[in-house]
Amino acid sequence: MIESRRSATEPTLEPHPATTTETTTTGTGVGGSASGGPALPSPGALAALRPLGWASARLHGDGLLGRWQERNARATLPHCLDQLEAGGALGNLRIAPGSGRRHVGMVFTDSDIYKTLEALAWHLAAEPADEAASDAFETLVDAVQQAQEPDGYLNSYVQHVRPGQRWADLEEGHELYCAGHLIQAAVAAARAGVGERLLPIARRFADLLVRCFGPDGRNAVCGHPEIETALVELYRETGHRPYLTLAQRFVDLRGRGLLGEHRFGAAYFQDHRPVREAAEFTGHAVRQVYLLAGAVDVAVETGDVELLAAAERLWGSAFRTKTYITGAHGSRHRDEAVGDPYELPPDRAYAETCAAIGSFQWNWRLLLATGKHRYAEEMERALYNAIAVSTAQDGAHFFYSNPLHLRTGHDGAEEDAPSRRLPWYTCACCPPNLARLLASLHCYTATTDETGVQVHLYAAGRIDDGAHSVEVETGYPWDGGIALTVSSVAGQLGQPWTLALRIPAWCRAYTVLVDGVELAAPAVDGYVRLTRDWAGERVELRLAMPPRVLAAHPRVDAVRGCVALARGPLVYSIEQHDLPDDAVLEDVALESVVPIQVGEHGADAAIPVTLTAAGRVRRFATERLYQPLDEALDEPLDETSGGASDETSRPFALTAIPYFLWGNRNPGPMRVWIPAAPRETPTRR
Amino acid sequence: MIESRRSATEPTLEPHPATTTETTTTGTGVGGSASGGPALPSPGALAALRPLGWASARLHGDGLLGRWQERNARATLPHCLDQLEAGGALGNLRIAPGSGRRHVGMVFTDSDIYKTLEALAWHLAAEPADEAASDAFETLVDAVQQAQEPDGYLNSYVQHVRPGQRWADLEEGHELYCAGHLIQAAVAAARAGVGERLLPIARRFADLLVRCFGPDGRNAVCGHPEIETALVELYRETGHRPYLTLAQRFVDLRGRGLLGEHRFGAAYFQDHRPVREAAEFTGHAVRQVYLLAGAVDVAVETGDVELLAAAERLWGSAFRTKTYITGAHGSRHRDEAVGDPYELPPDRAYAETCAAIGSFQWNWRLLLATGKHRYAEEMERALYNAIAVSTAQDGAHFFYSNPLHLRTGHDGAEEDAPSRRLPWYTCACCPPNLARLLASLHCYTATTDETGVQVHLYAAGRIDDGAHSVEVETGYPWDGGIALTVSSVAGQLGQPWTLALRIPAWCRAYTVLVDGVELAAPAVDGYVRLTRDWAGERVELRLAMPPRVLAAHPRVDAVRGCVALARGPLVYSIEQHDLPDDAVLEDVALESVVPIQVGEHGADAAIPVTLTAAGRVRRFATERLYQPLDEALDEPLDETSGGASDETSRPFALTAIPYFLWGNRNPGPMRVWIPAAPRETPTRR
Repeated sequence: MIESRRSATEPTLEPHPATTTETTTTGTGVGGSASGGPALPSPGALAALRPLGWASARLHGDGLLGRWQERNARATLPHCLDQLEAGGALGNLRIAPGSGRRHVGMVFTDSDIYKTLEALAWHLAAEPADEAASDAFETLVDAVQQAQEPDGYLNSYVQHVRPGQRWADLEEGHELYCAGHLIQAAVAAARAGVGERLLPIARRFADLLVRCFGPDGRNAVCGHPEIETALVELYRETGHRPYLTLAQRFVDLRGRGLLGEHRFGAAYFQDHRPVREAAEFTGHAVRQVYLLAGAVDVAVETGDVELLAAAERLWGSAFRTKTYITGAHGSRHRDEAVGDPYELPPDRAYAETCAAIGSFQWNWRLLLATGKHRYAEEMERALYNAIAVSTAQDGAHFFYSNPLHLRTGHDGAEEDAPSRRLPWYTCACCPPNLARLLASLHCYTATTDETGVQVHLYAAGRIDDGAHSVEVETGYPWDGGIALTVSSVAGQLGQPWTLALRIPAWCRAYTVLVDGVELAAPAVDGYVRLTRDWAGERVELRLAMPPRVLAAHPRVDAVRGCVALARGPLVYSIEQHDLPDDAVLEDVALESVVPIQVGEHGADAAIPVTLTAAGRVRRFATERLYQPLDEALDEPLDETSGGASDETSRPFALTAIPYFLWGNRNPGPMRVWIPAAPRETPTRR
Repeated sequence: MIESRRSATEPTLEPHPATTTETTTTGTGVGGSASGGPALPSPGALAALRPLGWASARLHGDGLLGRWQERNARATLPHCLDQLEAGGALGNLRIAPGSGRRHVGMVFTDSDIYKTLEALAWHLAAEPADEAASDAFETLVDAVQQAQEPDGYLNSYVQHVRPGQRWADLEEGHELYCAGHLIQAAVAAARAGVGERLLPIARRFADLLVRCFGPDGRNAVCGHPEIETALVELYRETGHRPYLTLAQRFVDLRGRGLLGEHRFGAAYFQDHRPVREAAEFTGHAVRQVYLLAGAVDVAVETGDVELLAAAERLWGSAFRTKTYITGAHGSRHRDEAVGDPYELPPDRAYAETCAAIGSFQWNWRLLLATGKHRYAEEMERALYNAIAVSTAQDGAHFFYSNPLHLRTGHDGAEEDAPSRRLPWYTCACCPPNLARLLASLHCYTATTDETGVQVHLYAAGRIDDGAHSVEVETGYPWDGGIALTVSSVAGQLGQPWTLALRIPAWCRAYTVLVDGVELAAPAVDGYVRLTRDWAGERVELRLAMPPRVLAAHPRVDAVRGCVALARGPLVYSIEQHDLPDDAVLEDVALESVVPIQVGEHGADAAIPVTLTAAGRVRRFATERLYQPLDEALDEPLDETSGGASDETSRPFALTAIPYFLWGNRNPGPMRVWIPAAPRETPTRR
């Protein structure tokens, strides 16, 4: 609910403390950042744009993003709470010293609790009357509070399995990673005004970290980045500069071999090269994007343009050579890593949900820092595809890895490559990560700056920062029409300001109307900017949203000869469910790339828009795995088809559904990249 | 050297003991199997063909296989011996109880020693005068002997790291796997007549296994198959039936969940389904092929046609849907597994050397059991490609995994995906496995049956089983001409017999001449059969060996639009070394599939035959990773190229070298599957 307990016009930050080392002692969440959302640059930070915060944006339940947020509150959050109990994570925190009870699960189960706490905090900011959520929040805080040691230390695995061995296994132990998630939960609770206990708990731990790892402490980093962004956020929330200094230390100390060797290479824990020297987006995908989010946070708060440039350079490496068409990262199951440039196999895509969430957060930070539209583009791509696909329509089953091709005959016995979404995982990092993202999703839709408001993600909802008000009505992403009713608050009239509307890179044609009158509105740097003394005008942005046929760079060997279908921000996929009964998915080809029909309101209401094209189920003359091109063929050579005959193939209407919706009907094979049947092409010799 | 200490006409087996449980007590290697090679079915076994044994075949040093064997003796074996010391494997065996010295390396380092012992045994059979090898053999046996416990148990890891915990971790502990390799070494030593100590050592251990796991013992299996084939071989060598019974038990007990759950699924340790019920070649590739080799051994010795049929059925699954064009298996690094049907990525091919060796051994057993040529085909394919590629020309550097595409920009930091061959590995299973295979390679070239001699692998060498003699002169695989001088030994004249010559499946035209006279010699079931009263005739088999252009089944998505070049049994590859300096390997396409030129005796003598074709370095209009097919193109749509323009591309002469020789010059990118530039193809609409 948008009606918050606090006015959205309260100052959003205490005075920027970057120039002082004096400790402020808010600690109660009633500090100056109240109503802030995730990632809240200080007023003096390198920031082109300012985030709106939770109190200044809302999503309506009739839009897709709003429905996702509602499902998160109704299904995912309660499910996470159940699983924290059932899976033992909460039990781990509640082990009484000397009780003999055993810690269960991964070393980082505490972080599942912290992420759920963060999700509850964002949720309760919007819905403070949700008593069940409020009770759950307090219950979790009880467990956290009683588990904390007097000096602030808190890690159930070390406390009960390796007592006395704090920081003994920074390589694999995830102690600072867990601390980071505790801190992020506490910052969220403070900004959301939910409870008063969590921030002091987090600060006690953070203060211990400063003593252990600060300038007077040990030179060390954690095998799994996460603490960096958390400490910057805690600095932003408290104004206590040693947290920022420590985050900066962790960023700068990384890549210097402090973690030693790793069998997957030091890039596995991002210790192969200092961030500011690195040229290649590499290693464990989640660790890479988390580190880069933290590096941007440090850069903007310390005014470190070199570090910011490094993060942008690594963004280039990632998005020019190592990103799936869904926005996902991670090509390898082996080490959960991104792989070599252009190594993007659809079937063995790891594409971990948490990596997509981390990429979303990293892009958000780059967007705030630079205002460049490309970062908003990638947020949108990841959100509607790589992130959205992970959750089942019931909100209680999840993919951990998100392949772009589930093969016919897939053996789904590996836990990280199941054939369908599972309710939970041994390594349960993703579901509560989704919960905290979805609970705060409204915060990412728009920003402000001195010129006005920028809308980056289109969703039915309302933006109101106390000076500017934008009511958004849209069926996006199902259709490209967006209506915005734009007002200034009383007292602000007579002061023109600029509404900036992002024109997505996928969009080749659009029109803009204000109160029914079409304007010439060229997009500059990705945004149409309309400056008015806004007083309730209705802006209509109509984004042409025809189906698109996409090809990959030819160096992406794994999808040679294939195309992907897309419409708006949504990548599409074909699923066994929609094929003729006797067709093997891998034998299906796209007969022609034109026309692609848009089928709205299909038989299945859960899939609002399908795409239909001329498909073909191909039949091959041989079952042999390898064969001479010029042998056993009934017709002329055809490299595209791999040389096999398809004379017995048959046409059919091939239906594609949004990738994020696959696997919600009969489970079965699926693919995003569809072989294109050969067609007449000019000779080049 | 072929001159052995024992006549090749000695009886090759003691009376078949399959009908008795009485224990024979040869134990000295002077038993009836003397001169036998790897896998020696008992006279009463289900066996269409009989192996020749080491004393009845030799390879000449002027042929490729002979050179490999010579290199193995001269370089690889001494290198393995050095590494057993340097890497600590031998030190592990020599740890004195209570000395406090630590076991180093993997839990199965003992097996590296056993495989090296087996290699030394085969080598010493042929070269008994090699004193260094003989001394090394005795030194290793000393270490093994002193490490064995009084009751026969032997495993340095358990003895020193987990004392008192025998068989406590059958899932991962590799105790029976190590025992299997000890037994195989002992059987080799016995057959080779090398030393007399090893077989009693192995039998003491095997007898302990019978007590622990036999019909009166525990129902259990080892996480890593290997013991099965070893026990059958020990039974064959000793006639002691309890070994066979135990092997049968291990095969039958597998697949019943005795090993419990595994995070990669129970198929990881082949415990998902009993072999005789399994339909899918799956799980960890090495474990799968080792298990199937053992299953065939059990089947042929027990007359179990159902089990043999299961092995043949799984062969179909493997070779119709899960085998690389190099004969390799294993598509996944994650769990070293074979993957789903048609999941055969060239760049992330795991293609472990040991899996190819295991496949070679499995196919050998199926060939002996059935006489079907397809098994000899796959032995040849694996040998010249998947196995041969693993060893550097110096014989002292090795690949563990054998990719079919090393990408531009490959990060070779992962130990199992290095950018070049390494001298040794933390998991060092492959190099000594190569050593034992190469040392016994001559044993696999031919077989006998009641009709005469069958030649399966063509290599300069001599076959002489005491009744039939075939001298083979050939430059195979560099050329397809094979001259065989065929004789009967004195006293056998006047008794016609059949020389069967395998016509490789890749060969579409051949001629056969006997003393210069061409014969009509149709191949029946893959073999040309010539029956004569052989008396020194010269048979010439001329296999036409033009370059071949191969395509994969269209379901192999990873190589769509690509072709592979081959000639004879050799798969070819293109390497950065042969490209224009500024060309990126992934931008190279094959301009035309005809003509392919054969370049013999090129500039590099180490690469006797190259292939040259019209290539093209393609230039693309955009660096974007994904793009609309109908946008940003300068010329008509072209699905094969992924839609990018190549108007600025330039032609060049593309040179391909045998895949097994790649990585021996300047290290750099390589690929087997080459994109085929688009050409005129008929429309199908």
